[in-house]
Amino acid sequence: MSSLHIDLNADLGETTAGNPVADDAAMLEMVSSANVATGFHAGDPHSIACTLKAAAEAGVTVGAHVGYNDAAGFGRRFIDYNPDELADEVTYQIGALDALARANGTKVSYVKPHGAMYNAIVKDEAQAEAVIKGIKAFGDLPVMLLPGGVAVDVAKRSGLNVIREAFADRNYNPDGTLVSRKEANAVLGSADEVVQRVLEVAQTGSITAVDGTKLEVDAQSVCTHGDSPGAVKLLRGVVERLREEGIEIRSFI
Amino acid sequence: MSSLHIDLNADLGETTAGNPVADDAAMLEMVSSANVATGFHAGDPHSIACTLKAAAEAGVTVGAHVGYNDAAGFGRRFIDYNPDELADEVTYQIGALDALARANGTKVSYVKPHGAMYNAIVKDEAQAEAVIKGIKAFGDLPVMLLPGGVAVDVAKRSGLNVIREAFADRNYNPDGTLVSRKEANAVLGSADEVVQRVLEVAQTGSITAVDGTKLEVDAQSVCTHGDSPGAVKLLRGVVERLREEGIEIRSFI
Amino acid sequence: MSSLHIDLNADLGETTAGNPVADDAAMLEMVSSANVATGFHAGDPHSIACTLKAAAEAGVTVGAHVGYNDAAGFGRRFIDYNPDELADEVTYQIGALDALARANGTKVSYVKPHGAMYNAIVKDEAQAEAVIKGIKAFGDLPVMLLPGGVAVDVAKRSGLNVIREAFADRNYNPDGTLVSRKEANAVLGSADEVVQRVLEVAQTGSITAVDGTKLEVDAQSVCTHGDSPGAVKLLRGVVERLREEGIEIRSFI
Amino acid sequence: MSSLHIDLNADLGETTAGNPVADDAAMLEMVSSANVATGFHAGDPHSIACTLKAAAEAGVTVGAHVGYNDAAGFGRRFIDYNPDELADEVTYQIGALDALARANGTKVSYVKPHGAMYNAIVKDEAQAEAVIKGIKAFGDLPVMLLPGGVAVDVAKRSGLNVIREAFADRNYNPDGTLVSRKEANAVLGSADEVVQRVLEVAQTGSITAVDGTKLEVDAQSVCTHGDSPGAVKLLRGVVERLREEGIEIRSFI
Repeated sequence: MSSLHIDLNADLGETTAGNPVADDAAMLEMVSSANVATGFHAGDPHSIACTLKAAAEAGVTVGAHVGYNDAAGFGRRFIDYNPDELADEVTYQIGALDALARANGTKVSYVKPHGAMYNAIVKDEAQAEAVIKGIKAFGDLPVMLLPGGVAVDVAKRSGLNVIREAFADRNYNPDGTLVSRKEANAVLGSADEVVQRVLEVAQTGSITAVDGTKLEVDAQSVCTHGDSPGAVKLLRGVVERLREEGIEIRSFI
Repeated sequence: MSSLHIDLNADLGETTAGNPVADDAAMLEMVSSANVATGFHAGDPHSIACTLKAAAEAGVTVGAHVGYNDAAGFGRRFIDYNPDELADEVTYQIGALDALARANGTKVSYVKPHGAMYNAIVKDEAQAEAVIKGIKAFGDLPVMLLPGGVAVDVAKRSGLNVIREAFADRNYNPDGTLVSRKEANAVLGSADEVVQRVLEVAQTGSITAVDGTKLEVDAQSVCTHGDSPGAVKLLRGVVERLREEGIEIRSFI
Repeated sequence: MSSLHIDLNADLGETTAGNPVADDAAMLEMVSSANVATGFHAGDPHSIACTLKAAAEAGVTVGAHVGYNDAAGFGRRFIDYNPDELADEVTYQIGALDALARANGTKVSYVKPHGAMYNAIVKDEAQAEAVIKGIKAFGDLPVMLLPGGVAVDVAKRSGLNVIREAFADRNYNPDGTLVSRKEANAVLGSADEVVQRVLEVAQTGSITAVDGTKLEVDAQSVCTHGDSPGAVKLLRGVVERLREEGIEIRSFI
Repeated sequence: MSSLHIDLNADLGETTAGNPVADDAAMLEMVSSANVATGFHAGDPHSIACTLKAAAEAGVTVGAHVGYNDAAGFGRRFIDYNPDELADEVTYQIGALDALARANGTKVSYVKPHGAMYNAIVKDEAQAEAVIKGIKAFGDLPVMLLPGGVAVDVAKRSGLNVIREAFADRNYNPDGTLVSRKEANAVLGSADEVVQRVLEVAQTGSITAVDGTKLEVDAQSVCTHGDSPGAVKLLRGVVERLREEGIEIRSFI
């Protein structure tokens, strides 16, 4: 009999020029997977290496958080890349991070596209193919994606495993896309709602959209945040509740 | 009986934003080793990947041309790095380049520090140790260095093989250092002198300094340049002369 | 009686890390207006300053060649900017360039958007408004644009003068847009065609599209290129022919 | 009879990619001068513009916080610049910031070198001359410096006014230099000591060094910090105490 379990992932390693974005140490005590920045949207080699070392010590699985080469925009602005350039940038980033990971007692075990890249490849087939091509050029790593997007199809067609991801704190449209951040109800309003979302995913794999539609996403990992004291505290509450419910936090690996 | 041979190396992969620095295609027909940029002092992942593919096809050995994170200064300005940051940047660069190399049918077989980093670690022990530490964190790759500098001692102490390098077109001081580019006679004045230098290195391993001193550097590789039409033409003359003398151009690997 | 005259403009000041893109010295002998890079898509402050000094000495009018903050992509990739960020970047660039210009005996007399920004604001109203807002925040400088685009309307509505630009070496669609570089006939095939195009613009202000349609663009400036030895030589032929025809090359200012 | 007064300055505008370094809003309620980043060591045009607007509204004097072009190192690493390149970078930065300042109801009224540049020009005459030359190329703005360094002499010789600066939270050597951050006692240990330092400067213009030596620095401005919640709270205490003592916080302008 298998017990209930869920993976919690978070974006870490985004400290640039000594200025931290998240409380990496606090987060590594709670999550089971760390999407570690590669220096493209954020992070620099030394701060990344420190986070990788801490992840190794905490037994947290490491993913390459590949992004657009746009530190000024934190990788959050769509860039209309030549696909060959995008593919090579993805390979470059994974290689760089894996070298630092291995030097610090761990390795890159999956890839998660960041920000505007993550959003673009839900619909943009050329970029989806470029990103998947860039991953495969490094190796057959699983890729963490929003269920239902074009990138999922491209990844499967290319023989890559997909880790289906759900968002702890975002509302969903009935079609499985996220409610845009331009809408008032983009983000879940209370800690209770976040706890409910994570429990729903862990216990059923599904998500209830804003109109009540049950989205059967079969999510394997839940995206959490640690980029403010409030976010860290909220996650502590989630983790406690999962423990009370007997749900184990563990990586999909 | 072993025949005479010498390695010719050149800096390639420095094309940034579509603007080439050297004629990589022409150079790959002549050299046996390519110091390929990693995106720090120059180059971007796609142009680097193109050069790596061409190097693989030409059977030219690939080295990681690691440099300071200073594209604005082409890696030619000394930066007073925190050693831990420098070490992690070196590991990052080798990992990134090796991933692109393997995706294109080759691999990183050695490391050559670039520009101000190359010059700094002749004397700066902290930076020399950081660079060697960064290489070792990736793997025990040979490192191409100026004979006689501090970095050579640090590399040997750390168990790394050193590839002793000579410069085809630079004058030497009697102590084995290069005549500063601030001096009028920094660079050899004629194609004949360059040919003589390369022949001297290939046939005797030694270099004659500006005052006539014979420097017994036992050089294994000669640094050449392809960053102007004149430089490429000059190298063609060198290569032809080596052939006439029965000296094989082949990598140290 | 006014004699025939035309402005020739070219992109200069794009030297980055010591690696020139165009032969600025040769171009400044021929053109009447220089679109000088600002360090965002290309150029660094010192090489920009050198080009500004040479432009001042040659009596060539200086424009700010504002672009996306994307040196890696040479400003040629569309970026989905937040309009407020784009506007402030434009103001920043003009201010930086104007300070260097005044320190070197000239000043910024107009603004020309570069690359993907130039193309985007032909159709993207939000970005067009951001760019014009960014210019106006510095001062009421004329702006060089492709006739017929959205940016022209926005500029006029905002009270900015528009300098209507034609391209010496590009084919036009019947609707006044440029034939995409993805098409085989994007660029004019011969020096003769380029000379004919410039003469047509100088003598009639209009352009003949690929299907023979006469586009009444009333162009005041012609965009030329100096980014290869061939391009410089071609422009020499154009300049000679203009002289033979008694057409003066002079700035629109 | 003139009442006692002192200028408090702080580094602001360092938000990059949406990630703030200091609490700019809180600081602008307390300081009289803001050293605003220019995008070289930190900051991007839009976040800088927001800080400039807030400074204008708060009536806080704006200075250009010029730095090395080293965002990865937050401008804190010495770079061995070519002096001409450094001078042009300084002019570029002031011009860019002044354009944004004027668009937001204020202007650049002084210049303060940042980080490694500030430290270098205490001793490095070539860089000191480059920085002063770069300022003068923009205009005769006062420059904020550590009293006693080479840069002070160069600035005065060039006809620039010097704003003599003291540090609220750093210990001084008997020769007027700061105790290195590598020493245990680099930073003042308690809020009381900081208050005492600011009062000493405001009331006497002098500073007591670690060995008790009275340094007659005649400081006009005191550097404060807002880069942590603790720092902001500490400064609140200082401001309250100054008010109790009847010492006005006002700019040197």
